[in-house]
Amino acid sequence: MVPDKARLAGVRLLVFDFDGVFTDNSVYVFEDGREAVRCSRGDGMGVARLREHGLEMLILSTEENAVVSARAKKLKLEYFHGVWNKLDQLKRILEEKNVSLDQVAYVGNDINDAECLRSVGVPIVVADAYDEVRQLGAYITKATGGNGAVREICDMFYNARLGGDGGV
Amino acid sequence: MVPDKARLAGVRLLVFDFDGVFTDNSVYVFEDGREAVRCSRGDGMGVARLREHGLEMLILSTEENAVVSARAKKLKLEYFHGVWNKLDQLKRILEEKNVSLDQVAYVGNDINDAECLRSVGVPIVVADAYDEVRQLGAYITKATGGNGAVREICDMFYNARLGGDGGV
Amino acid sequence: MVPDKARLAGVRLLVFDFDGVFTDNSVYVFEDGREAVRCSRGDGMGVARLREHGLEMLILSTEENAVVSARAKKLKLEYFHGVWNKLDQLKRILEEKNVSLDQVAYVGNDINDAECLRSVGVPIVVADAYDEVRQLGAYITKATGGNGAVREICDMFYNARLGGDGGV
Amino acid sequence: MVPDKARLAGVRLLVFDFDGVFTDNSVYVFEDGREAVRCSRGDGMGVARLREHGLEMLILSTEENAVVSARAKKLKLEYFHGVWNKLDQLKRILEEKNVSLDQVAYVGNDINDAECLRSVGVPIVVADAYDEVRQLGAYITKATGGNGAVREICDMFYNARLGGDGGV
Repeated sequence: MVPDKARLAGVRLLVFDFDGVFTDNSVYVFEDGREAVRCSRGDGMGVARLREHGLEMLILSTEENAVVSARAKKLKLEYFHGVWNKLDQLKRILEEKNVSLDQVAYVGNDINDAECLRSVGVPIVVADAYDEVRQLGAYITKATGGNGAVREICDMFYNARLGGDGGV
Repeated sequence: MVPDKARLAGVRLLVFDFDGVFTDNSVYVFEDGREAVRCSRGDGMGVARLREHGLEMLILSTEENAVVSARAKKLKLEYFHGVWNKLDQLKRILEEKNVSLDQVAYVGNDINDAECLRSVGVPIVVADAYDEVRQLGAYITKATGGNGAVREICDMFYNARLGGDGGV
Repeated sequence: MVPDKARLAGVRLLVFDFDGVFTDNSVYVFEDGREAVRCSRGDGMGVARLREHGLEMLILSTEENAVVSARAKKLKLEYFHGVWNKLDQLKRILEEKNVSLDQVAYVGNDINDAECLRSVGVPIVVADAYDEVRQLGAYITKATGGNGAVREICDMFYNARLGGDGGV
Repeated sequence: MVPDKARLAGVRLLVFDFDGVFTDNSVYVFEDGREAVRCSRGDGMGVARLREHGLEMLILSTEENAVVSARAKKLKLEYFHGVWNKLDQLKRILEEKNVSLDQVAYVGNDINDAECLRSVGVPIVVADAYDEVRQLGAYITKATGGNGAVREICDMFYNARLGGDGGV
């Protein structure tokens, strides 16, 4: 069930988990312990277009690795990583931004996203989210993480804000 | 619908977008912000064979990252990257080469390719192009980007120029 | 056939092969001979949650490359790699830990895992294990290696130890 | 159609193309032009077991990049890369080894393998070989390149030499 456009248009902050949302939840591990992840250029284009339309977005991740910040910087997104209690951190962010939980859309895929998904106005999980969070009643994207889920979500908000059908 | 051979044979310049065409639109992100992409050796073989038959090709990409130039150099293709207005750039290129838009085939996959696809003689999109450009009426390849789309296109032009069936 | 919960709850040590279990059995090869592998953040979350519930786990791999130790360290798992005779090594480990073979669950995917799979109390192979070890009668996971097999196994033990259904 | 065991047992040299056979024909391209490829640990295990049974194997590749030699060294395989005329090179190799073309099995996937495939006693192509070489009448593996084709071929020769069924 796609959230109705009025509800989407009321969202003031779009919060993304990183691994499993911007990626397919894989991590490439090198001999020296460095890591890499696979992201989508199409997601990047969706983020860029939505930002131009003025929706604020940020990344909130438990993962400590610097790939999170590397990708966030490329996409010009605010980010918080190495966050163990995501809901506490989210509340601190909202207080500073003067946004209420009800005005937040949160996108996640795993058990450490459950509290945030239960608390925000528009909870969203990717198509390949773990069963334990799929059962929370959030909107489930058609695309899987790293393979277009972020683009799908950005286009959904873009079209809701545009009031149109998103044609080129 | 495959463009007829006469039309293909009339093409004087074959222009490729990079991400999503030479790649599956993924980007591998490292801790220090460097990037990598996945390309196809089979595409490379198709490009090499078509170049030997004398068709001019080039890469025109919005992406600024050096992976574009790295791949273009390996394939001995002319390239332009970090291009924000692709149609303007294409027109400048054509003026210098004394080629008309009608004599150009353009291969793209996303919304930043829409203007070029609308303007050239032979517009082509990959099988997994975004809906917004799939709806433009361009020829759609069977293969997806990074997984044979470039090879398929090169073989199509090779066979049209050869007048044969491309048998080994 | 899922092993019954009593049997799972009796396991004192969970031993994982690495390649093909924590990975899809692929290896990324670089020009200088260095290697990388693709692992799953979701597996990591499953391992972390199960360790908090007190089940001891370790990695036992024939592969000599340092990617094994890199991943094991990130997951805070004990590891043994470059092991040519896995059953001999496993017996030495068990002697030191005062655990019997019957109290061990072993997860593998290829012919060098056959002896261990034949010897332990709870043998497990991933969905895409080679036929020669799939025929040994071990429990076969639903997920393939590198794509959730480790998470599935961790969740299975977690739920067995919890006595519940693993709800968030 | 699997070649009969007598024919397989008569093979004295097993020659592999590299890209598209040991890999899925992808290449990972980095900003500085370096490359990487994805290979299979399972292929490596098949090669190791077959070598212990005494079948000589080598890699013959047109690609110049050092990833070919890096993988060949890890698998302890003789290799020739940067080879533009593969049949000429193969003939030179055979002369030195005193092996006839009829005693060679050759595994390929693309048009630059066509001459060798036409010339050897046991021609083999991977499941995802290009149509132009699939039509040459070679044995076609079930597995695709980089995803088990080499293991399948090694196991086929191993079983033919063993005279058994390859049980663990």
